[in-house]
Amino acid sequence: MIKYGKYTKEGGWTMELLEKRIQKDGIVKAGNVLKVDSFLNHQMDMELFNEMGKEFRRIFADRPVNKILTIEASGIGIACIAAQYFQVPVVFAKKAQSINLDGEVYSTKIESFTHKRVYDVIVSKKYLGPEDHVLILDDFLANGCAVNGLIDLIESAGAVVEGIGIVIEKGQQAGGRLLREKGYRVESLAVIERMNEETGEIVFH
Amino acid sequence: MIKYGKYTKEGGWTMELLEKRIQKDGIVKAGNVLKVDSFLNHQMDMELFNEMGKEFRRIFADRPVNKILTIEASGIGIACIAAQYFQVPVVFAKKAQSINLDGEVYSTKIESFTHKRVYDVIVSKKYLGPEDHVLILDDFLANGCAVNGLIDLIESAGAVVEGIGIVIEKGQQAGGRLLREKGYRVESLAVIERMNEETGEIVFH
Repeated sequence: MIKYGKYTKEGGWTMELLEKRIQKDGIVKAGNVLKVDSFLNHQMDMELFNEMGKEFRRIFADRPVNKILTIEASGIGIACIAAQYFQVPVVFAKKAQSINLDGEVYSTKIESFTHKRVYDVIVSKKYLGPEDHVLILDDFLANGCAVNGLIDLIESAGAVVEGIGIVIEKGQQAGGRLLREKGYRVESLAVIERMNEETGEIVFH
Repeated sequence: MIKYGKYTKEGGWTMELLEKRIQKDGIVKAGNVLKVDSFLNHQMDMELFNEMGKEFRRIFADRPVNKILTIEASGIGIACIAAQYFQVPVVFAKKAQSINLDGEVYSTKIESFTHKRVYDVIVSKKYLGPEDHVLILDDFLANGCAVNGLIDLIESAGAVVEGIGIVIEKGQQAGGRLLREKGYRVESLAVIERMNEETGEIVFH
Protein backbone atom coordinates (compact mmCIF):
# COMPACT_ATOMS: atom_id res chain seq x y z
CA MET A 1 0.00 0.00 0.00
CA ILE A 2 1.24 3.44 -0.89
CA LYS A 3 0.75 5.47 2.25
CA TYR A 4 1.43 8.86 0.78
CA GLY A 5 1.12 10.01 -2.79
CA LYS A 6 3.76 12.68 -2.61
CA TYR A 7 5.97 12.87 -5.67
CA THR A 8 9.64 13.08 -4.87
CA LYS A 9 11.24 12.19 -8.21
CA GLU A 10 10.84 14.67 -11.02
CA GLY A 11 8.61 17.09 -9.16
CA GLY A 12 11.09 17.76 -6.40
CA TRP A 13 11.45 21.40 -7.20
CA THR A 14 7.74 22.21 -6.95
CA MET A 15 7.47 20.33 -3.69
CA GLU A 16 10.45 22.16 -2.28
CA LEU A 17 9.02 25.50 -3.39
CA LEU A 18 5.71 24.73 -1.69
CA GLU A 19 7.20 23.24 1.47
CA LYS A 20 9.51 26.22 1.88
CA ARG A 21 6.58 28.56 1.42
CA ILE A 22 4.53 26.69 4.02
CA GLN A 23 7.50 26.80 6.42
CA LYS A 24 7.98 30.50 5.78
CA ASP A 25 4.39 31.76 5.75
CA GLY A 26 2.25 29.03 7.31
CA ILE A 27 1.05 29.60 10.86
CA VAL A 28 0.20 26.72 13.17
CA LYS A 29 -2.86 27.41 15.30
CA ALA A 30 -4.62 25.59 18.10
CA GLY A 31 -6.83 22.68 17.08
CA ASN A 32 -4.54 21.35 14.37
CA VAL A 33 -5.21 24.36 12.15
CA LEU A 34 -2.64 25.45 9.57
CA LYS A 35 -3.19 28.95 8.27
CA VAL A 36 -1.83 29.46 4.78
CA ASP A 37 -4.08 32.33 3.87
CA SER A 38 -1.22 34.60 2.82
CA PHE A 39 -0.65 32.56 -0.36
CA LEU A 40 -3.21 29.77 -0.74
CA ASN A 41 -6.76 30.41 0.43
CA HIS A 42 -7.40 34.08 1.04
CA GLN A 43 -4.56 35.85 -0.72
CA MET A 44 -3.43 33.68 -3.64
CA ASP A 45 0.03 33.72 -5.20
CA MET A 46 -0.41 33.08 -8.91
CA GLU A 47 3.26 32.31 -9.55
CA LEU A 48 3.12 29.49 -7.01
CA PHE A 49 -0.29 28.40 -8.34
CA ASN A 50 1.18 28.11 -11.84
CA GLU A 51 4.00 25.90 -10.62
CA MET A 52 1.50 23.72 -8.78
CA GLY A 53 -0.80 23.59 -11.79
CA LYS A 54 2.05 22.39 -14.02
CA GLU A 55 2.96 19.82 -11.40
CA PHE A 56 -0.58 18.41 -11.24
CA ARG A 57 -0.50 18.13 -15.03
CA ARG A 58 2.80 16.27 -14.90
CA ILE A 59 1.61 13.90 -12.17
CA PHE A 60 -1.67 13.05 -13.90
CA ALA A 61 -0.32 13.14 -17.48
CA ASP A 62 -1.20 9.47 -17.98
CA ARG A 63 -4.87 9.94 -17.08
CA PRO A 64 -7.50 10.84 -19.73
CA VAL A 65 -8.85 13.82 -17.77
CA ASN A 66 -11.55 15.82 -19.58
CA LYS A 67 -12.83 17.86 -16.63
CA ILE A 68 -11.60 19.20 -13.30
CA LEU A 69 -14.00 19.24 -10.37
CA THR A 70 -13.49 21.31 -7.24
CA ILE A 71 -15.64 22.84 -4.54
CA GLU A 72 -16.22 26.47 -3.72
CA ALA A 73 -14.56 28.59 -2.64
CA SER A 74 -10.88 28.04 -2.01
CA GLY A 75 -10.41 25.18 -4.50
CA ILE A 76 -11.48 27.29 -7.45
CA GLY A 77 -8.21 29.18 -7.87
CA ILE A 78 -5.90 26.20 -8.13
CA ALA A 79 -8.47 24.30 -10.23
CA CYS A 80 -8.62 27.12 -12.78
CA ILE A 81 -4.87 27.62 -12.98
CA ALA A 82 -4.23 23.87 -13.32
CA ALA A 83 -7.01 23.46 -15.89
CA GLN A 84 -5.04 25.64 -18.30
CA TYR A 85 -2.36 22.94 -18.44
CA PHE A 86 -4.91 20.15 -18.93
CA GLN A 87 -6.88 22.25 -21.44
CA VAL A 88 -10.15 21.16 -19.88
CA PRO A 89 -13.03 23.04 -18.22
CA VAL A 90 -13.46 23.40 -14.48
CA VAL A 91 -16.71 22.65 -12.68
CA PHE A 92 -17.10 23.77 -9.12
CA ALA A 93 -19.59 22.16 -6.77
CA LYS A 94 -21.74 24.73 -5.00
CA LYS A 95 -22.69 24.94 -1.38
CA ALA A 96 -26.46 25.27 -0.90
CA GLN A 97 -29.11 25.93 -3.50
CA SER A 98 -29.13 29.07 -5.58
CA ILE A 99 -32.05 30.36 -7.60
CA ASN A 100 -29.70 30.42 -10.57
CA LEU A 101 -29.42 26.62 -10.60
CA ASP A 102 -32.04 24.25 -11.98
CA GLY A 103 -33.53 21.53 -9.82
CA GLU A 104 -31.61 19.17 -12.08
CA VAL A 105 -28.63 18.61 -9.83
CA TYR A 106 -26.64 15.87 -8.15
CA SER A 107 -26.37 16.57 -4.47
CA THR A 108 -24.47 15.36 -1.44
CA LYS A 109 -23.75 16.50 2.08
CA ILE A 110 -20.30 17.66 3.17
CA GLU A 111 -19.18 18.43 6.69
CA SER A 112 -16.75 21.33 6.84
CA PHE A 113 -13.84 20.97 9.23
CA THR A 114 -13.18 24.69 8.97
CA HIS A 115 -16.71 25.94 9.43
CA LYS A 116 -18.01 23.21 11.77
CA ARG A 117 -21.20 22.70 9.82
CA VAL A 118 -22.80 20.49 7.19
CA TYR A 119 -23.40 21.84 3.70
CA ASP A 120 -25.63 20.60 0.93
CA VAL A 121 -23.35 20.53 -2.08
CA ILE A 122 -24.64 20.35 -5.61
CA VAL A 123 -23.50 20.09 -9.19
CA SER A 124 -25.74 20.49 -12.21
CA LYS A 125 -26.47 17.28 -14.13
CA LYS A 126 -25.63 19.24 -17.29
CA TYR A 127 -21.95 19.46 -16.33
CA LEU A 128 -21.22 15.97 -15.07
CA GLY A 129 -22.19 12.78 -16.90
CA PRO A 130 -21.14 9.23 -17.80
CA GLU A 131 -18.78 10.53 -20.50
CA ASP A 132 -16.66 12.42 -17.98
CA HIS A 133 -13.20 11.50 -16.70
CA VAL A 134 -12.75 13.76 -13.74
CA LEU A 135 -9.75 15.00 -11.80
CA ILE A 136 -10.66 16.34 -8.37
CA LEU A 137 -8.49 19.24 -7.20
CA ASP A 138 -8.63 20.95 -3.83
CA ASP A 139 -6.44 23.04 -1.58
CA PHE A 140 -6.63 20.90 1.57
CA LEU A 141 -7.18 17.27 2.49
CA ALA A 142 -7.70 16.49 6.18
CA ASN A 143 -10.53 14.15 7.11
CA GLY A 144 -11.51 13.84 3.47
CA CYS A 145 -15.10 15.04 3.83
CA ALA A 146 -14.97 17.41 0.88
CA VAL A 147 -13.23 14.93 -1.43
CA ASN A 148 -15.61 12.13 -0.47
CA GLY A 149 -18.53 14.41 -1.25
CA LEU A 150 -17.06 15.23 -4.67
CA ILE A 151 -16.49 11.52 -5.36
CA ASP A 152 -20.13 10.91 -4.45
CA LEU A 153 -21.24 13.55 -6.98
CA ILE A 154 -18.99 12.10 -9.72
CA GLU A 155 -20.15 8.54 -9.12
CA SER A 156 -23.81 9.64 -8.97
CA ALA A 157 -23.24 11.03 -12.47
CA GLY A 158 -21.75 7.72 -13.68
CA ALA A 159 -18.47 9.52 -14.38
CA VAL A 160 -14.96 8.23 -13.62
CA VAL A 161 -12.73 9.59 -10.86
CA GLU A 162 -9.33 9.70 -12.58
CA GLY A 163 -7.50 11.05 -9.59
CA ILE A 164 -7.40 13.45 -6.69
CA GLY A 165 -4.84 16.25 -6.55
CA ILE A 166 -4.34 18.10 -3.29
CA VAL A 167 -2.11 21.04 -2.44
CA ILE A 168 -1.65 20.32 1.28
CA GLU A 169 -2.54 17.02 2.90
CA LYS A 170 -2.64 16.74 6.66
CA GLY A 171 -1.04 13.32 7.00
CA GLN A 172 -2.01 13.09 10.66
CA GLN A 173 -5.66 12.89 9.66
CA ALA A 174 -7.08 9.78 8.04
CA GLY A 175 -8.68 11.26 4.93
CA GLY A 176 -5.88 10.53 2.47
CA ARG A 177 -5.12 7.06 3.81
CA LEU A 178 -8.76 5.96 3.63
CA LEU A 179 -9.13 7.25 0.07
CA ARG A 180 -5.98 5.41 -1.03
CA GLU A 181 -7.18 2.23 0.66
CA LYS A 182 -10.38 2.47 -1.38
CA GLY A 183 -8.18 2.52 -4.50
CA TYR A 184 -8.34 6.19 -5.44
CA ARG A 185 -5.18 7.81 -6.70
CA VAL A 186 -4.46 10.68 -4.32
CA GLU A 187 -1.46 12.91 -5.03
CA SER A 188 -0.63 15.66 -2.58
CA LEU A 189 2.00 18.27 -3.34
CA ALA A 190 2.88 18.62 0.35
CA VAL A 191 2.04 16.18 3.13
CA ILE A 192 2.30 17.41 6.70
CA GLU A 193 3.43 14.78 9.14
CA ARG A 194 3.12 16.86 12.26
CA MET A 195 2.80 20.43 13.45
CA ASN A 196 3.57 22.01 16.80
CA GLU A 197 1.38 24.87 17.82
CA GLU A 198 3.80 26.08 20.52
CA THR A 199 7.03 26.08 18.52
CA GLY A 200 5.37 26.67 15.14
CA GLU A 201 7.29 23.68 13.78
CA ILE A 202 5.89 22.02 10.66
CA VAL A 203 7.34 18.66 9.64
CA PHE A 204 6.67 17.21 6.19
CA HIS A 205 6.46 13.59 5.27
CA MET B 1 -20.74 61.15 -18.71
CA ILE B 2 -19.66 57.80 -20.01
CA LYS B 3 -22.71 55.62 -19.59
CA TYR B 4 -21.07 52.31 -20.38
CA GLY B 5 -17.46 51.28 -20.10
CA LYS B 6 -17.54 48.69 -22.83
CA TYR B 7 -14.46 48.74 -25.02
CA THR B 8 -15.27 48.62 -28.70
CA LYS B 9 -12.01 49.71 -30.27
CA GLU B 10 -9.08 47.35 -29.88
CA GLY B 11 -10.88 44.75 -27.76
CA GLY B 12 -13.57 44.06 -30.34
CA TRP B 13 -12.62 40.44 -30.78
CA THR B 14 -12.87 39.52 -27.11
CA MET B 15 -16.22 41.24 -26.82
CA GLU B 16 -17.50 39.45 -29.89
CA LEU B 17 -16.27 36.11 -28.55
CA LEU B 18 -18.03 36.70 -25.24
CA GLU B 19 -21.24 38.15 -26.71
CA LYS B 20 -21.50 35.24 -29.13
CA ARG B 21 -20.98 32.81 -26.29
CA ILE B 22 -23.68 34.50 -24.21
CA GLN B 23 -26.05 34.42 -27.21
CA LYS B 24 -25.28 30.75 -27.83
CA ASP B 25 -25.22 29.36 -24.28
CA GLY B 26 -26.90 31.96 -22.06
CA ILE B 27 -30.44 31.22 -20.93
CA VAL B 28 -32.86 33.99 -20.00
CA LYS B 29 -35.00 33.12 -17.00
CA ALA B 30 -37.88 34.78 -15.20
CA GLY B 31 -36.98 37.64 -12.87
CA ASN B 32 -34.29 39.14 -15.08
CA VAL B 33 -31.97 36.18 -14.48
CA LEU B 34 -29.33 35.27 -17.06
CA LYS B 35 -27.92 31.80 -16.62
CA VAL B 36 -24.40 31.47 -17.97
CA ASP B 37 -23.41 28.55 -15.81
CA SER B 38 -22.23 26.44 -18.74
CA PHE B 39 -19.14 28.60 -19.20
CA LEU B 40 -18.90 31.32 -16.54
CA ASN B 41 -20.09 30.52 -13.04
CA HIS B 42 -20.55 26.80 -12.52
CA GLN B 43 -18.68 25.20 -15.40
CA MET B 44 -15.84 27.52 -16.41
CA ASP B 45 -14.24 27.66 -19.86
CA MET B 46 -10.56 28.43 -19.37
CA GLU B 47 -9.92 29.34 -23.00
CA LEU B 48 -12.56 32.05 -22.78
CA PHE B 49 -11.29 33.08 -19.32
CA ASN B 50 -7.81 33.55 -20.73
CA GLU B 51 -9.08 35.82 -23.49
CA MET B 52 -11.02 37.82 -20.91
CA GLY B 53 -8.03 37.99 -18.58
CA LYS B 54 -5.83 39.37 -21.37
CA GLU B 55 -8.52 41.89 -22.21
CA PHE B 56 -8.78 43.15 -18.62
CA ARG B 57 -5.01 43.57 -18.66
CA ARG B 58 -5.17 45.53 -21.89
CA ILE B 59 -8.00 47.75 -20.64
CA PHE B 60 -6.33 48.55 -17.30
CA ALA B 61 -2.74 48.65 -18.63
CA ASP B 62 -2.38 52.31 -17.60
CA ARG B 63 -3.30 51.66 -13.96
CA PRO B 64 -0.65 50.77 -11.33
CA VAL B 65 -2.50 47.65 -10.10
CA ASN B 66 -0.66 45.62 -7.46
CA LYS B 67 -3.55 43.44 -6.27
CA ILE B 68 -6.80 42.02 -7.60
CA LEU B 69 -9.77 41.78 -5.25
CA THR B 70 -12.81 39.62 -5.88
CA ILE B 71 -15.46 37.91 -3.81
CA GLU B 72 -16.12 34.24 -3.37
CA ALA B 73 -17.11 32.18 -5.13
CA SER B 74 -17.73 32.79 -8.80
CA GLY B 75 -15.37 35.77 -9.13
CA ILE B 76 -12.34 33.74 -8.10
CA GLY B 77 -11.81 31.98 -11.42
CA ILE B 78 -11.65 35.07 -13.61
CA ALA B 79 -9.66 36.94 -10.96
CA CYS B 80 -6.98 34.22 -10.89
CA ILE B 81 -6.74 33.85 -14.65
CA ALA B 82 -6.55 37.63 -15.14
CA ALA B 83 -4.02 38.02 -12.32
CA GLN B 84 -1.51 36.03 -14.35
CA TYR B 85 -1.43 38.82 -16.92
CA PHE B 86 -1.09 41.52 -14.26
CA GLN B 87 1.49 39.46 -12.34
CA VAL B 88 -0.15 40.35 -9.04
CA PRO B 89 -1.75 38.31 -6.26
CA VAL B 90 -5.49 37.81 -5.89
CA VAL B 91 -7.35 38.37 -2.63
CA PHE B 92 -10.87 37.10 -2.34
CA ALA B 93 -13.31 38.54 0.20
CA LYS B 94 -14.99 35.82 2.22
CA LYS B 95 -18.63 35.44 3.13
CA ALA B 96 -19.17 34.96 6.88
CA GLN B 97 -16.53 34.29 9.51
CA SER B 98 -14.30 31.22 9.39
CA ILE B 99 -12.28 29.90 12.31
CA ASN B 100 -9.29 30.02 9.95
CA LEU B 101 -9.38 33.81 9.86
CA ASP B 102 -8.12 36.13 12.56
CA GLY B 103 -10.40 38.70 14.14
CA GLU B 104 -8.24 41.26 12.35
CA VAL B 105 -10.48 41.87 9.39
CA TYR B 106 -12.23 44.61 7.49
CA SER B 107 -15.89 43.76 7.14
CA THR B 108 -18.93 44.93 5.25
CA LYS B 109 -22.43 43.69 4.43
CA ILE B 110 -23.41 42.63 0.94
CA GLU B 111 -26.89 41.78 -0.25
CA SER B 112 -26.89 38.97 -2.79
CA PHE B 113 -29.29 39.36 -5.71
CA THR B 114 -28.89 35.67 -6.54
CA HIS B 115 -29.31 34.27 -3.05
CA LYS B 116 -31.78 36.85 -1.68
CA ARG B 117 -29.90 37.32 1.55
CA VAL B 118 -27.36 39.55 3.27
CA TYR B 119 -23.81 38.32 3.85
CA ASP B 120 -21.13 39.55 6.17
CA VAL B 121 -18.09 39.84 3.95
CA ILE B 122 -14.57 40.12 5.28
CA VAL B 123 -11.00 40.55 4.19
CA SER B 124 -7.99 40.18 6.46
CA LYS B 125 -6.19 43.41 7.33
CA LYS B 126 -2.98 41.62 6.44
CA TYR B 127 -3.88 41.49 2.75
CA LEU B 128 -5.25 44.96 2.14
CA GLY B 129 -3.56 48.17 3.25
CA PRO B 130 -2.78 51.80 2.34
CA GLU B 131 -0.01 50.67 -0.03
CA ASP B 132 -2.44 48.77 -2.27
CA HIS B 133 -3.73 49.78 -5.68
CA VAL B 134 -6.59 47.43 -6.26
CA LEU B 135 -8.44 46.23 -9.32
CA ILE B 136 -11.84 44.74 -8.49
CA LEU B 137 -12.87 41.88 -10.79
CA ASP B 138 -16.17 40.04 -10.76
CA ASP B 139 -18.30 37.95 -13.06
CA PHE B 140 -21.54 39.96 -12.82
CA LEU B 141 -22.61 43.52 -12.14
CA ALA B 142 -26.32 44.15 -11.65
CA ASN B 143 -27.38 46.35 -8.75
CA GLY B 144 -23.75 46.75 -7.71
CA CYS B 145 -24.09 45.42 -4.15
CA ALA B 146 -21.05 43.15 -4.35
CA VAL B 147 -18.83 45.79 -5.96
CA ASN B 148 -19.94 48.47 -3.51
CA GLY B 149 -19.09 46.10 -0.65
CA LEU B 150 -15.63 45.47 -2.11
CA ILE B 151 -15.08 49.23 -2.54
CA ASP B 152 -16.05 49.66 1.11
CA LEU B 153 -13.43 47.08 2.14
CA ILE B 154 -10.74 48.71 -0.01
CA GLU B 155 -11.49 52.20 1.27
CA SER B 156 -11.61 50.96 4.88
CA ALA B 157 -8.06 49.75 4.31
CA GLY B 158 -6.97 53.13 2.94
CA ALA B 159 -6.16 51.48 -0.38
CA VAL B 160 -6.93 52.87 -3.83
CA VAL B 161 -9.62 51.49 -6.16
CA GLU B 162 -7.85 51.57 -9.53
CA GLY B 163 -10.77 50.16 -11.46
CA ILE B 164 -13.58 47.67 -11.67
CA GLY B 165 -13.59 44.96 -14.34
CA ILE B 166 -16.78 43.02 -14.95
CA VAL B 167 -17.49 40.14 -17.29
CA ILE B 168 -21.23 40.73 -17.76
CA GLU B 169 -22.99 43.92 -16.78
CA LYS B 170 -26.75 44.06 -16.72
CA GLY B 171 -27.19 47.51 -18.20
CA GLN B 172 -30.88 47.60 -17.26
CA GLN B 173 -29.91 47.71 -13.60
CA ALA B 174 -28.44 50.82 -12.06
CA GLY B 175 -25.27 49.40 -10.45
CA GLY B 176 -22.81 50.29 -13.20
CA ARG B 177 -24.29 53.73 -13.86
CA LEU B 178 -24.19 54.72 -10.19
CA LEU B 179 -20.58 53.55 -9.82
CA ARG B 180 -19.52 55.54 -12.89
CA GLU B 181 -21.35 58.60 -11.61
CA LYS B 182 -19.33 58.33 -8.41
CA GLY B 183 -16.19 58.45 -10.54
CA TYR B 184 -15.11 54.82 -10.49
CA ARG B 185 -13.76 53.40 -13.68
CA VAL B 186 -16.01 50.45 -14.53
CA GLU B 187 -15.20 48.39 -17.60
CA SER B 188 -17.52 45.57 -18.56
CA LEU B 189 -16.64 43.08 -21.29
CA ALA B 190 -20.30 42.65 -22.21
CA VAL B 191 -23.19 44.94 -21.32
CA ILE B 192 -26.71 43.60 -21.67
CA GLU B 193 -29.23 46.17 -22.75
CA ARG B 194 -32.29 43.96 -22.55
CA MET B 195 -33.35 40.33 -22.38
CA ASN B 196 -36.63 38.67 -23.26
CA GLU B 197 -37.57 35.68 -21.20
CA GLU B 198 -40.17 34.48 -23.71
CA THR B 199 -38.14 34.66 -26.90
CA GLY B 200 -34.76 34.13 -25.23
CA GLU B 201 -33.50 37.25 -27.03
CA ILE B 202 -30.46 38.96 -25.51
CA VAL B 203 -29.54 42.42 -26.82
CA PHE B 204 -26.16 43.96 -26.01
CA HIS B 205 -25.39 47.61 -25.66
